[in-house]
Amino acid sequence: MTFLGNLHKSEMLVLSTGRWENQVYMSKRTVFFVSDHSGVTAETLGHSLITQFDASEFQKTTVPFVSTLDKAIQAVALINATANSDGYPPIVFSTLVQDDIRDVVRGSNALFLDFFDSFLGPLERELGMTSTHAMGVAHGMQDTQKYDRRIDATNFALVHDDGANPEGYEQADIILIGVSRSGKTPTCLYVALQYGVYAANLPLTEENLEGRRTPPEIAQHRSKMYGLTIEPKRLEAIRAERRHGSRYASPNQVSYEVRQAEALFERLGIPFVDTTNCSIEELASRILNETGVKRTGLA
Amino acid sequence: MTFLGNLHKSEMLVLSTGRWENQVYMSKRTVFFVSDHSGVTAETLGHSLITQFDASEFQKTTVPFVSTLDKAIQAVALINATANSDGYPPIVFSTLVQDDIRDVVRGSNALFLDFFDSFLGPLERELGMTSTHAMGVAHGMQDTQKYDRRIDATNFALVHDDGANPEGYEQADIILIGVSRSGKTPTCLYVALQYGVYAANLPLTEENLEGRRTPPEIAQHRSKMYGLTIEPKRLEAIRAERRHGSRYASPNQVSYEVRQAEALFERLGIPFVDTTNCSIEELASRILNETGVKRTGLA
Repeated sequence: MTFLGNLHKSEMLVLSTGRWENQVYMSKRTVFFVSDHSGVTAETLGHSLITQFDASEFQKTTVPFVSTLDKAIQAVALINATANSDGYPPIVFSTLVQDDIRDVVRGSNALFLDFFDSFLGPLERELGMTSTHAMGVAHGMQDTQKYDRRIDATNFALVHDDGANPEGYEQADIILIGVSRSGKTPTCLYVALQYGVYAANLPLTEENLEGRRTPPEIAQHRSKMYGLTIEPKRLEAIRAERRHGSRYASPNQVSYEVRQAEALFERLGIPFVDTTNCSIEELASRILNETGVKRTGLA
Repeated sequence: MTFLGNLHKSEMLVLSTGRWENQVYMSKRTVFFVSDHSGVTAETLGHSLITQFDASEFQKTTVPFVSTLDKAIQAVALINATANSDGYPPIVFSTLVQDDIRDVVRGSNALFLDFFDSFLGPLERELGMTSTHAMGVAHGMQDTQKYDRRIDATNFALVHDDGANPEGYEQADIILIGVSRSGKTPTCLYVALQYGVYAANLPLTEENLEGRRTPPEIAQHRSKMYGLTIEPKRLEAIRAERRHGSRYASPNQVSYEVRQAEALFERLGIPFVDTTNCSIEELASRILNETGVKRTGLA
C-alpha cells in the first residue's frame, strides 16, 4: 500500500479507470455502526444515509457496547485492519456519547461520522443545558414505565392476535380488521414493540364479509377500528405460498373477499389503508397519525 | 410576542428567574419529528438526542409523509403555531431528503436539525457519488427481499413461540431457551421485525430443569441455543402479576427454576445472558454479536 502515497487505493482505481471501477470499488465499502450501547441508533442513522446511495453494496458490521477506552482501542484495531484489507477507509457511523471514547474511535482510518458530536452542541445551546453524556439511555431501561408499556403492549398484541381472545378490547388503542393475510399481525406487533401501542386484530370471516358487518365482539368499539386492504393479485400470491391451489388462494375467492371488505369499511365509515406497497413502518405511521393514537412508549 | 423583541420568551424567563424557571420552561418544550416518509429515522435519532437531557419532558409529535411543498408549508404552519402558543421555538428533528422541501421547513420558527443535511455531504465526498435524494428508502419497500425476510421471520417467530411447533428448527438462526417469563418472546419478535433474524424459543419445562437437559426437539441444534436468565426477585414480580399467590410465582419455585436453568446452561456450555436490566434492544444486540448471526434484513 505504501506506493500509493497519500492516495487511497480506491482513488487510484477511480482516477485511472473511471466509472466501472468506481462501481466495483463502491460495491465493497465496509460500514461500521459503532455504539457505546445497543447500536440501534447508529444502525438506523447509517442505514438511512447509505440507502441514499444507489448501486452500492455495503458490508455492514455493528460494533456495540464500546463503553470503555479499551473497547474503543479494540474497535479502532478492527476498523484499521478492515481499511488495510479493503484497501480504502471504511465508513463509521457512531453514537458515542463520551468525548474520550469518541476521540479514540475518531482516530481510526475511516470516514468518521458521529451523531452526538454533530447535534448535541446546537441542542445544548438551544435548551440552555448541558447534556448528561450518559450511555445507553435511548434504548436502555432508564425509563422503566415506557419500557414496560412496550412489553405489555407486545403481550397484548399476542393475546389479541387474529381474534384469539373474545374479551379485553376496551384496553385496545386500535383494532385492525381485514381479510386473512392483509398484514394485520406484523403491524400490531410493530406498533406494540416500537411505540407501546395496544393493538388487537381480527380477521373478517366469511360471515362478516357476506353481511358486510364487523365481528360482533368488537361491535361497540367502532371508533378504534382501522381496516387493512390489499390488491387481490398480491394477496393471491401471499396466500398461494401458504396453500397453493386452494380455494383460499383462488382469484375468485380473493377478489370477492377484498371487494366485500372494502365495501364493509366504506359502509361503516371505517378508515382503511392499502397495504400492498406499504412497509410496516409506513403502515404504523399512517395509522397512528390518522387515528391520533399517541406513540406512548416511543423506543 | 412582539414585545419580546429578538429574545424568545423562554430566554426572558431563564434570564430573569434562573434555574427553577428554566426547568419549568424545559418541561414544556415541543419536539417535532418531521419526515418525508414514515418518520421512524427522525424519531429514533431525535429520541436518542433528547434522552441526553435530564429533567426534561418533551411534548413529541411525529409529522410524517411531508413529501410535497404543500405539506411542507402545512408543517411550517403547525410548527409556527406551536412556537406561538408555547412562547418559544420548538425543536425540529427532520429527515427530509429533498432540498426544496427541507428549505421550506428550515424556515420555521424552530431549532431545525436535519440529519441528511449534516451527513450526506461528507458521505458524497468520501464515496465519490451523489446521493439519490429518493424519499422513503430506509423504511420503505424498495428492497423487497429484505422486507419480505423481516415479515417471514416474524411469522417464523410466531409459529415457533414458546415451543409451539415441534419442527422447523433447522430454519432457525437462533433458539432462545429459558424459564417462563424470562423475556424470550419479545426478544424473538424484536430480532425478527428489526433484523429479519429467524428466532425460535422454547420454555424449560420442569422435566428439562430437573434433568438439566434441553428440550429433546432441539437437541441436535446445540450451536443455535442461547439462554436467558433473570434475577429471581424480578421474575417473582413478573409472575405474580400474572398469577398472584401461585406456586408458579413463589420465591422457592422461582429460585429453584433459575438455579437449575443456569446450571443447565453451564453444564452444556450454552451461552446465556441475564435479562433483568436489559432492554430488548440490548439483548438483541448482545445475542447477535456473540453468536455472529447476521442482521440480514436490517430495517
